[in-house]
Amino acid sequence: MKITVLGQAITSFGELWQKSLPDLLMEAMAGAIENANLEINDIDAIFVANMSAGMAENQVHLGALASQLLGGNKPAMRVEGACASGSLAMLAGEYSLLAGQYKTVLVVGVEKMTDIDSALATKYLSGAAFYGQEYGSTFPGLYGLLAGAHMQKYGTTRDQLSAVAVKNHLHAFDNPNAQYHKKFSLDQISQSQLVADPLRLLDCSPITDGAAAVVLTTKVAKGLAKISGFGHGQDSLDLAGRKSLTSLEATKLAADHAYAMADLSAKQIQVAEVHDCFTIAEILAYEDLGFAKVGEGGKSVAADQMTYGGQVVVNPSGGLKAGGHPVGATGVKQIAYLAKILAQGQFETALAHNVGGSGATSVVHILTNKND
Amino acid sequence: MKITVLGQAITSFGELWQKSLPDLLMEAMAGAIENANLEINDIDAIFVANMSAGMAENQVHLGALASQLLGGNKPAMRVEGACASGSLAMLAGEYSLLAGQYKTVLVVGVEKMTDIDSALATKYLSGAAFYGQEYGSTFPGLYGLLAGAHMQKYGTTRDQLSAVAVKNHLHAFDNPNAQYHKKFSLDQISQSQLVADPLRLLDCSPITDGAAAVVLTTKVAKGLAKISGFGHGQDSLDLAGRKSLTSLEATKLAADHAYAMADLSAKQIQVAEVHDCFTIAEILAYEDLGFAKVGEGGKSVAADQMTYGGQVVVNPSGGLKAGGHPVGATGVKQIAYLAKILAQGQFETALAHNVGGSGATSVVHILTNKND
Repeated sequence: MKITVLGQAITSFGELWQKSLPDLLMEAMAGAIENANLEINDIDAIFVANMSAGMAENQVHLGALASQLLGGNKPAMRVEGACASGSLAMLAGEYSLLAGQYKTVLVVGVEKMTDIDSALATKYLSGAAFYGQEYGSTFPGLYGLLAGAHMQKYGTTRDQLSAVAVKNHLHAFDNPNAQYHKKFSLDQISQSQLVADPLRLLDCSPITDGAAAVVLTTKVAKGLAKISGFGHGQDSLDLAGRKSLTSLEATKLAADHAYAMADLSAKQIQVAEVHDCFTIAEILAYEDLGFAKVGEGGKSVAADQMTYGGQVVVNPSGGLKAGGHPVGATGVKQIAYLAKILAQGQFETALAHNVGGSGATSVVHILTNKND
Repeated sequence: MKITVLGQAITSFGELWQKSLPDLLMEAMAGAIENANLEINDIDAIFVANMSAGMAENQVHLGALASQLLGGNKPAMRVEGACASGSLAMLAGEYSLLAGQYKTVLVVGVEKMTDIDSALATKYLSGAAFYGQEYGSTFPGLYGLLAGAHMQKYGTTRDQLSAVAVKNHLHAFDNPNAQYHKKFSLDQISQSQLVADPLRLLDCSPITDGAAAVVLTTKVAKGLAKISGFGHGQDSLDLAGRKSLTSLEATKLAADHAYAMADLSAKQIQVAEVHDCFTIAEILAYEDLGFAKVGEGGKSVAADQMTYGGQVVVNPSGGLKAGGHPVGATGVKQIAYLAKILAQGQFETALAHNVGGSGATSVVHILTNKND
């Protein structure tokens, strides 16, 4: 593996009424190029991640849009895989680099969710599921089923779910671009409005606008971090087709590939950004990624093993839960955020975990800050 | 270059009221795997091209849908770049192969346009342009501007535009899956209903349902054809940002790269599938790809240089014009069709040319049937 993350940028995440989708795209792209200390002409190609601009703004062809905004007519394509769009665009960019087609590429993820109302946003999010079988299911509904199954099988508790949210809201204070900077108690989470039993309002990640970009290169460079491994796992889009409701097989497949490629094990990962679209999703991630034993994810977070001073620091940015979840941007933001903190020297090994749908698509990246 | 096209399948193209998007996806995928003489488990990953399912059917995450339909939980991603989605998915698949990530991949393009009415279809197609500058422009309107400019600058005539349509409708009789099997005279084309001056109804490609798939491998195999080169060019999404209205710069950039990679020149290409979304687009393609001198594309087709017995056989399938244009499928269908006829031995060198928007994105592939 010879890919270096040379630069990164993350916009503010939140309800960004003053910023359009092109504004966000441009802010992230220009920021990452500046952070990499490059000029536009150093970029060979652009990979854009977005889920809903076609549905929400009748704007597809976002690759061409990004290319026009940036200038220089860089070849560009859009990659989409629901909430995993960002990490899939990372993969497409990485493949182009490893194929020798390009030397330096820009990967940018963007989503503008607040120009549409909540009912429409919910409808668009349901587009990540299979319309034939699961139309009418909401995302909280699907993850509610997973949460219920985990609680029943392993005794995971309401307060253990809440411990994920409490932790991530605390972590978000370290991330100036996070959507929320607000401390919550266990009780506040556990007693918030019921959304899809057992999931409550404060178990859910929010509707977010935002963008993130990274510059990747195969040229010899110190950069912020190295991409040491990646993996892409797939499972049935329908829950009915899954082997298990208490783990995401796609994540296990993706992690196995990424760990093997990086020649690292779960125990060696010091920091991770995982896909906590709902609190239960983070508990599943602990177990599927090997950070906790099967069935013990809830106990681990409640015992402070998933924060500073514990086994691995999970979601230092606040994750999707407190940091925000601008769908197509999320997978890119995870890499950007980890590259930034790896460059600061506090950690040496990092993992990013991005999920599409209710677990049909999962992508794992491993980053290190050791020069090789 | 070590990529072999091992198998291909193209569904019927047309108004397929009896077939859903999943039906079309599955028919093309299964057909290509069967044609390659493989089993599902020989496929390592799937790359899906589609433009409008998010907008038309609120179904994104088509990678996961394709993977579930096929079975075997193959890693999958969707690639989109308006009408160039098919060839961009080809590129993403090719990058993954050349990167060594996969050995054998399935690329499938699909579009289901007739479940929506014409007004909606027109609206969705406008999503390929930049909503800020060109909202309200229709595709025929944009290509009408290009046609007018070409006629004014080079004296291209109404009957030369019509000659493209006459030829492609004749060619379509050789393609059993073409949308139309109907012969037209020059006068019928030239006197059809005006759509966007100077373009008339029979200058325009139709609204089409359909799917196409190819199996690509880097394993040593004879297969149907080799991918000898590819290139991806980009230009301004807005016509206002272009250097010229009488050629597509993106096509020239893509062709230069593909010819260099294949070590072939335009004169050596024997057969081509080019992006004739409108008759003028095929005339621009002749010139931008080097099949005709600048300004002489119209004369060349009128002089029967672009058909059997001429310099190069362009659009033997009937092209988009008579074969049909199921947006995301088109770029994959071009490769599938060319691979099929290369395997038949009548031709040795072929070129596929796929355009997104009114020329913002262009992808060129070169295929050969010589074993190397």
